[in-house]
Amino acid sequence: MTTTQSRNDLYLEVQQYYARQTHMLDAPDLEGYSNTFTEDAEFVHSAGRPPARTRAGILADLVDFHRRFEEDPMKRRHHFSMIDLVPLADGSIRSTFYALVVITRPGQGPELRASCVVRDVLVREDGELRNRSRVVEID
Amino acid sequence: MTTTQSRNDLYLEVQQYYARQTHMLDAPDLEGYSNTFTEDAEFVHSAGRPPARTRAGILADLVDFHRRFEEDPMKRRHHFSMIDLVPLADGSIRSTFYALVVITRPGQGPELRASCVVRDVLVREDGELRNRSRVVEID
Amino acid sequence: MTTTQSRNDLYLEVQQYYARQTHMLDAPDLEGYSNTFTEDAEFVHSAGRPPARTRAGILADLVDFHRRFEEDPMKRRHHFSMIDLVPLADGSIRSTFYALVVITRPGQGPELRASCVVRDVLVREDGELRNRSRVVEID
Repeated sequence: MTTTQSRNDLYLEVQQYYARQTHMLDAPDLEGYSNTFTEDAEFVHSAGRPPARTRAGILADLVDFHRRFEEDPMKRRHHFSMIDLVPLADGSIRSTFYALVVITRPGQGPELRASCVVRDVLVREDGELRNRSRVVEID
Repeated sequence: MTTTQSRNDLYLEVQQYYARQTHMLDAPDLEGYSNTFTEDAEFVHSAGRPPARTRAGILADLVDFHRRFEEDPMKRRHHFSMIDLVPLADGSIRSTFYALVVITRPGQGPELRASCVVRDVLVREDGELRNRSRVVEID
Repeated sequence: MTTTQSRNDLYLEVQQYYARQTHMLDAPDLEGYSNTFTEDAEFVHSAGRPPARTRAGILADLVDFHRRFEEDPMKRRHHFSMIDLVPLADGSIRSTFYALVVITRPGQGPELRASCVVRDVLVREDGELRNRSRVVEID
């Protein structure tokens, strides 16, 4: 396999991975989403909230965070774009991309909720990509 | 051709296909857009409107739908993202993705018009991808 | 290398190229961004502004354009999507895509600033993609 090919295979795999990951997050299927993180992962997703650590900790944090949507129902959609991948020396991959969060409340039009820069470190476990870390910086 | 390669070739082909399809829809080149559907296709694109069936029926429905833009001129842009592809047993491909519709009226700034989840079934005819069905679910 | 493969390699290379280019533009790293243009490039980026010509001219024009952000601080993010590539006879590539510009002012939510159709001509110099021209048409 050439270097170009393996680099391209990875770029596509990451796009497909992010598609499934965001579909789970927005469903919401919080357990499915948290399973895309490694057991020892770190997730920093909102300014002012401390980092969530370990897969179980990330799930607990997400469940807590999503409580606010019980009183303010909305569809949320995460759009990731402009993905830049850099392979690191230890075999992991640094992925830097933009995320737009679009929400729609019942009976209303959609609105932009957040514009973010996201910094992931991705690793491969049992042949599958997973997030070892994700840091979300809201503009 | 390896499985990885053929899966990746397909993912790229779908991205390129959607780019051309949306450019036609937004031009608008409704005939060009309806030609991306198979002769027996089904298209459900707006809540409350019955499904359009057959390529000719889809074109007629689109022409009818676009009449509203004669009195309310605007540029429309469809942004597809987070594409998840699943090959089906019969050789067709299920594609699930997000769509944002952005409109701009003369002299005004752009606004988000709709946030959608779209479910396509794609098939290959004469070597080209086409939509056998498209179901648009508006948030 | 098959035609399909080289076409796909190019599509991915363009996606990665645009990711890095927009990250530089939005940082903003105007010198880095202007270095993605060829020495003799032409850049038409705003209705009513004359085209910027040559890499040095493009940088000077960008520095001038970005002065407005000193008095109106904001984060800007360029989201490119729906990329359609057409190889031209002279070896260059015509790329047509949509761009959304999202801005966020301190303490405020994000807003859509512009919806655009962008027409690039890309060439390869020393193995790297560069813009020989870019024409931005704001909706």
